Amino acid sequence: MAAMKKKNSQLCVGLDPRPEIGGPDALLDFCITIVEKTSDCCFCYKPNTQYILPLGFSEIKELNDLIHDKGCLSISDHKLSDIGSTNRAALSWLSSMGFDALTYSPFPGNIKETIETAAGYGMGVITLTLMSNPEADYFMKGVVQGVPGYEFIAQQVAAFKGLGAVVGATCNVEDINRLHAVLTHQLILSPGVGAQGGGLDIVRVFKERTMVNVSRDIITHENPSERARYYQILINSAVKEM
Amino acid sequence: MAAMKKKNSQLCVGLDPRPEIGGPDALLDFCITIVEKTSDCCFCYKPNTQYILPLGFSEIKELNDLIHDKGCLSISDHKLSDIGSTNRAALSWLSSMGFDALTYSPFPGNIKETIETAAGYGMGVITLTLMSNPEADYFMKGVVQGVPGYEFIAQQVAAFKGLGAVVGATCNVEDINRLHAVLTHQLILSPGVGAQGGGLDIVRVFKERTMVNVSRDIITHENPSERARYYQILINSAVKEM
Repeated sequence: MAAMKKKNSQLCVGLDPRPEIGGPDALLDFCITIVEKTSDCCFCYKPNTQYILPLGFSEIKELNDLIHDKGCLSISDHKLSDIGSTNRAALSWLSSMGFDALTYSPFPGNIKETIETAAGYGMGVITLTLMSNPEADYFMKGVVQGVPGYEFIAQQVAAFKGLGAVVGATCNVEDINRLHAVLTHQLILSPGVGAQGGGLDIVRVFKERTMVNVSRDIITHENPSERARYYQILINSAVKEM
Repeated sequence: MAAMKKKNSQLCVGLDPRPEIGGPDALLDFCITIVEKTSDCCFCYKPNTQYILPLGFSEIKELNDLIHDKGCLSISDHKLSDIGSTNRAALSWLSSMGFDALTYSPFPGNIKETIETAAGYGMGVITLTLMSNPEADYFMKGVVQGVPGYEFIAQQVAAFKGLGAVVGATCNVEDINRLHAVLTHQLILSPGVGAQGGGLDIVRVFKERTMVNVSRDIITHENPSERARYYQILINSAVKEM
């Protein structure tokens, strides 16, 4: 919240460099260029592990150091989906690499354990709660302990004081309102605005607790800086709407 | 199946080097040493992404090249949990790094898409189906399309001709039998034998289609070679039991 206020921005830029860009050096250069061009307009970056797979420890650390130098935070879009000592290993490495938070895919359960272990490494956990691709409904809207899966996750995230929840911007407003009733103190990381067609309902509901992720429409734009500014202003306007 | 026959082994050795071992060089050295010591007794290795996070492209490629030189295969225990173009990026990199297969965490659905995309990169998908930690029951035994989650996953894996399914060795035998009725042609990757207390029921049911993963009890043993031989023989005996 402090970083958002300082930057006057709720924009998170997703660092998803396409494999076509090249090997580790080219991917790192690409990410660095995006950070240099957009850090005035956003408060946070979200490197997706799948896109930066070829980068090693020192390259990821270099990227996160730059992000912090610009006064921004770094969320690892890792979708961690293990338990126990495996998660401890991941959290230990992600923390050493300089990430401030990570995304968790709660398919194996263990939301409480992951939040507590991450806290020991000074990291926040943002748990996948509701995605908007149709097949995500199998589990996220399946019946878990008598309630829809996404509501069960939200209850656990709230009960164990998780930092946040991932909720797709293209989800319908009824589901968003239902989550708003449960997630009373969490940050909401919302991908899908822009190229994926998502609107700003999520921002109108969660207001200053929303972290809006835009990736493709900024990082592949001919002028990433101008495009990031556009989203910064768009989001700030939506927060102020009654 | 060919690699298992050639090696007369259904043992997969999980490469889970603890963070305490050191930085990227120390982790790579550790994995290489384990491969050198155990490749006579197993047909496959399973590096877990969370444990080798600090390794970059060239280090992972070096490890997989060695594994192939020894006549073995390499499964990335990646628990991929994304969709669409993000999964394509991951599959492209994992394939370039030399992995033959990967694990998929089907929380976002898209099992068919992932199997088909992976096939384009020459990789097999082994889908998380039933884990044995108690909280995995929330989703894996939740109600999805009218059936328990794990059965729904197994139906999809079978329908879309996935390479395999991950089924914990510590799962109860009723669940294992239920999966056996659905997964008529898949390989079963089964972790949990050894240090995690799992028995060999899974091998007795799925016979020569079982890939038994042992990690801790081999890689932290004072004599990894001898310990791998012990498991090779133990598993081969269980396959032959009536």
